[in-house]
Amino acid sequence: MEITEAIRSRRSIRKYQDRPIEEEKLLRVLDTGRMAPSARNLQDWKFIVVRDQDKRKMLSEAANGQPYVEKASAVIVGCATEPENIMPCGQYCYPIDLAIALDHMSLAATAEGLGSCWIGAFQEDKVKEILDIPEKIRVVAMLILGYPAESPAARPRRKLDEIVVYDKWAN
Amino acid sequence: MEITEAIRSRRSIRKYQDRPIEEEKLLRVLDTGRMAPSARNLQDWKFIVVRDQDKRKMLSEAANGQPYVEKASAVIVGCATEPENIMPCGQYCYPIDLAIALDHMSLAATAEGLGSCWIGAFQEDKVKEILDIPEKIRVVAMLILGYPAESPAARPRRKLDEIVVYDKWAN
Repeated sequence: MEITEAIRSRRSIRKYQDRPIEEEKLLRVLDTGRMAPSARNLQDWKFIVVRDQDKRKMLSEAANGQPYVEKASAVIVGCATEPENIMPCGQYCYPIDLAIALDHMSLAATAEGLGSCWIGAFQEDKVKEILDIPEKIRVVAMLILGYPAESPAARPRRKLDEIVVYDKWAN
Repeated sequence: MEITEAIRSRRSIRKYQDRPIEEEKLLRVLDTGRMAPSARNLQDWKFIVVRDQDKRKMLSEAANGQPYVEKASAVIVGCATEPENIMPCGQYCYPIDLAIALDHMSLAATAEGLGSCWIGAFQEDKVKEILDIPEKIRVVAMLILGYPAESPAARPRRKLDEIVVYDKWAN
C-alpha cells in the first residue's frame, strides 16, 4: 500500500473480528517499528506483545475498561527503557522515539489489512504490575491490533491553513 | 511508494542540494501530518515552515550550529499549541501527537524523493525568539526537508528479538 494511502485510510478501530493475526504479518508490523529513527539512535524501546486472553482482559481493566483492548488480537505495549535521556531542546527523548516506532507499526498494520488504535487512557502502575515491568521502565502508549469489524468514517481534521504558517508564528 | 519501502529507505539526511522543494510537493508532505491521529483528536499542533534563508541560518545557530538546518530547503518547526493536556497514563499528549504528525511527514517526504532529518538538539527559547512563538507554546522538534545530496547507509538496529517480548516483560 502506498504511504499516503496508508496515512489517509488509517482509522482508530474499536471493533475487532475474533480472528488471530498471522504470525508473519505481526512480525512484519513489529519490524517497521524496529526501523524507526530515534534520538542518537538510542532505540530506547521494548515492545511487549500481549496475545494472552487473560492478560488482555486485565489490560482492558487497567485501560479504564475500554473493551476493545481485550477484543483486539494483540496489544503492543510500548515501553521506554531509558526514560532518563533528555534532548537539548528540553524534551524527553522517549515519548517521541516510542511514538515514531508505534506510528510506523500503525501504518504498516493498515497496509496489512489490520486495524489499530492508540491507547493512552490507562493506569501505568496497573499495566506495569500485570506485565511484570520493572520500576524504572515507562509505559508510553499501547497500540491494539486486529482484523477490523467496523469501517468508521474519518474524524474531522483542521484545514491545512489552520495548522501551517510560514517563516514565523501566526494564529 | 509502498509504506514498508518508505520506512526502510528513510535515512537521516544531513547534506542537501541547493534546490527548492516544489510547492505542491511540500503541501502534500504537510497534509500527511494533518491526517495524523492525536489524543482525543485534539490536533494540538501548528507547523511553522521556514524557507527564508536568514531565518534558517538563525535556526541553525539555535540548533547548536548544525549546518544542515540552514542547508535544507525547508525547516518544519513542530509546535504544541495545548501543551497542558495530560493522558490518563501520565504522559503529556503533545510530544506523542507531534511526533506522529512529523513521522507521517518524514515518511511522505521519503516517498516524494526528499530527504529529511529530525532535529532535537536546539535551544527552545532561541527558536521561539527567532520565530515569534508565544510563551505558552512548546517547540517539540524540527524536521528539515530538502533534496538529498548524500545516500548514507542504514544505521545499525537492534534485532527484533532484542526489542520484542511476549505477554510479559523480559530482558
